[in-house]
Formats: sequence, C-alpha cells, structure tokens
Amino acid sequence: MPNITVELVSGRTLDQRREFAAAVTEAAAAILKADREKVRILFLEIEKSDVANGGVLECDK
Amino acid sequence: MPNITVELVSGRTLDQRREFAAAVTEAAAAILKADREKVRILFLEIEKSDVANGGVLECDK
Amino acid sequence: MPNITVELVSGRTLDQRREFAAAVTEAAAAILKADREKVRILFLEIEKSDVANGGVLECDK
Amino acid sequence: MPNITVELVSGRTLDQRREFAAAVTEAAAAILKADREKVRILFLEIEKSDVANGGVLECDK
Amino acid sequence: MPNITVELVSGRTLDQRREFAAAVTEAAAAILKADREKVRILFLEIEKSDVANGGVLECDK
Amino acid sequence: MPNITVELVSGRTLDQRREFAAAVTEAAAAILKADREKVRILFLEIEKSDVANGGVLECDK
Repeated sequence: MPNITVELVSGRTLDQRREFAAAVTEAAAAILKADREKVRILFLEIEKSDVANGGVLECDK
Repeated sequence: MPNITVELVSGRTLDQRREFAAAVTEAAAAILKADREKVRILFLEIEKSDVANGGVLECDK
Repeated sequence: MPNITVELVSGRTLDQRREFAAAVTEAAAAILKADREKVRILFLEIEKSDVANGGVLECDK
Repeated sequence: MPNITVELVSGRTLDQRREFAAAVTEAAAAILKADREKVRILFLEIEKSDVANGGVLECDK
Repeated sequence: MPNITVELVSGRTLDQRREFAAAVTEAAAAILKADREKVRILFLEIEKSDVANGGVLECDK
Repeated sequence: MPNITVELVSGRTLDQRREFAAAVTEAAAAILKADREKVRILFLEIEKSDVANGGVLECDK
C-alpha cells in the first residue's frame, strides 16, 4: 500500500502513464512515508461513451 | 459527488446508457439534493465470462 | 446486475438512501431492462476530509 | 454478498477462472457462512502496461 | 496480483477473515498460478443500511 | 477525470493527505495534461485487520 487506482480518459501515451506512475510513487514515498516497493498503481482507461457528468455522456458534449 | 459506478452486462445501447445516466442524475438531484453538475456516472461493461454467481460463470448458465 | 456503487458525502438520511435506491432500481428495470431483483446498489459514505477536487480537500473549502 | 472483485493479469484461461470462482465460492460458504447463491465474483483482466509496482510499469520489468 | 476486494456484511469475526484470506490465497496459487506473496485481499465491511437488492435496503427486509 | 482512489493504511495525518492530494493533482496536470479542477482524489483508510498479503492479515504480521 498505498493501492492507487487511476481512472482516466483513454488516449494517454504509455510514456505519460510511465512518468505519472513514477511521480505518484515518489510522492507516496516522500509524503506518506510509504515503502516505495509497495506502492501499486492501476490505470483504467475510460471511453467518453462510458462516463457522464451532469447527466450527459462525455461523448455527447 | 455523488460518484456512481455502474457495472452492467455488455450489450446495452448507447441510447440506453444515455437515458439511464439522465434518469439517475435526475434522481440524485431530486432525492439526494446533489448538485446536478457534480453527479458523475461511470459505466463498466462486463462480459458474461467475467462474472460468476453462485460459483458458476454466467457464460456457463 | 447491474451492480451499482454510489459514493456520496456523508449526511444523507436513511430515507434519502431508501428513496434513491428505489428510483435507481426502477430506472434500471425500465431503461436497461434489468431484472429488478438483480439490481444491487451499494452506498459508500465519504467524509469531506477524504476527498479532494482540484487538489484541495473538500474539508478545506 | 459477499461481492468479490478479482483484478488479475490477463492470460488466465476460462477454465482457470471457472475453477477459481468455484473454489472461492466454496470457501465463502464454508468459512463466511455465506449463502452460496449470493456469492458474486467479478474478474477484471489487467494488462501489464496498466499496472505499476514500485513506480515501474509491469511491462517495463 | 491478483488483487482481490471482498465486500461483505459486517459481523464476520477476525478468525473468519483470517481463514478466508488463507483459503483464497491458496486457491489463487494453486489454480491461477499466482505468486502467493503477491496475492492481496482487502475486506470491506458493509452495513445492511448501505446496500439494497431489488430496490430495498437490506436493513428493511 | 482523472478520478483517483487511494487505499492507504490508516494513521496518516490530514496534513499528509492534504499535501499528497496537491502533489498528485499537480502531476496529473503536468504529465497527463488533465484539467486541474477536474482531478478528483478519494482516500480510503484501511485497517490492518482488513487486508491480507501473502495469505496473512497485516495485523498478524
């Protein structure tokens, strides 16, 4: 732990996920005093047709 | 908030998701007094080979 | 299914949750053609000190 | 209930999921005294490019 | 991985959770060929006032 | 989005959560090009009696 799940709109590159995972792990170690090796980050890519804000699907905006 | 995640068997149309998102957002505003703009709904489509009830995968029923 | 998880700020009454569960189940049956008996709704109450939007905890706003 | 979500690296066969679902349901009935018919298990397949441990994506290891 | 989340009605003893965690980990190692040390199980206790099936809160049944 | 859920062992201070939320939001904006105002972070505090790694509850280690 911490065990972190990141829902994000699809389209980010592998490099962006790679860099973001490193940065969040660094922040968890520095701020939360987590053991770096135990930080787990899971990315879930979400399509705009699968999420609604304010009652409207993002693909309809 | 509220932040609502809906796991459902794949196969529903975009229109069904659209209408359901609108109805749930309406209910959240009317009943929970949520700010309509802050209601978020995420749909996760599940395959029948990925879910088991009573110890048996749905695709085997 | 559907299996629905509702994260909401704590403070809603049992009556509000009761009414919201009924309304969402009704919408799932009418719109998604779900078997009403198989609609499951889980409420997770969230404290304002446990959620941040825009980088700021809700309890600090 | 219980409602069980299993995130696992993609590549397991349908037979493995089938057998695992049966075993976990059995354990829930025997140990947790759950009603076998109400045990729900959901599998979410995760790609190695979507999960990082120790700040490094599994696909980079 | 696997990373397993178990939502269950509150009231199970620590011994039941302990025994269930061991059994599920054993099944993951034997059937899914998981590295036993990497199996993670999280229990989330749910109150009957926080879950509805068929549109009715469990605490009302 | 992104919508980020952080499961962490209980015991972190509000200040740690506050600082971590700010750092993760900053990283999401800089690396993922997310709209800072739409980054949502939810903390879920986990007790050691509720999580097992390697088949053993953390409170038993």
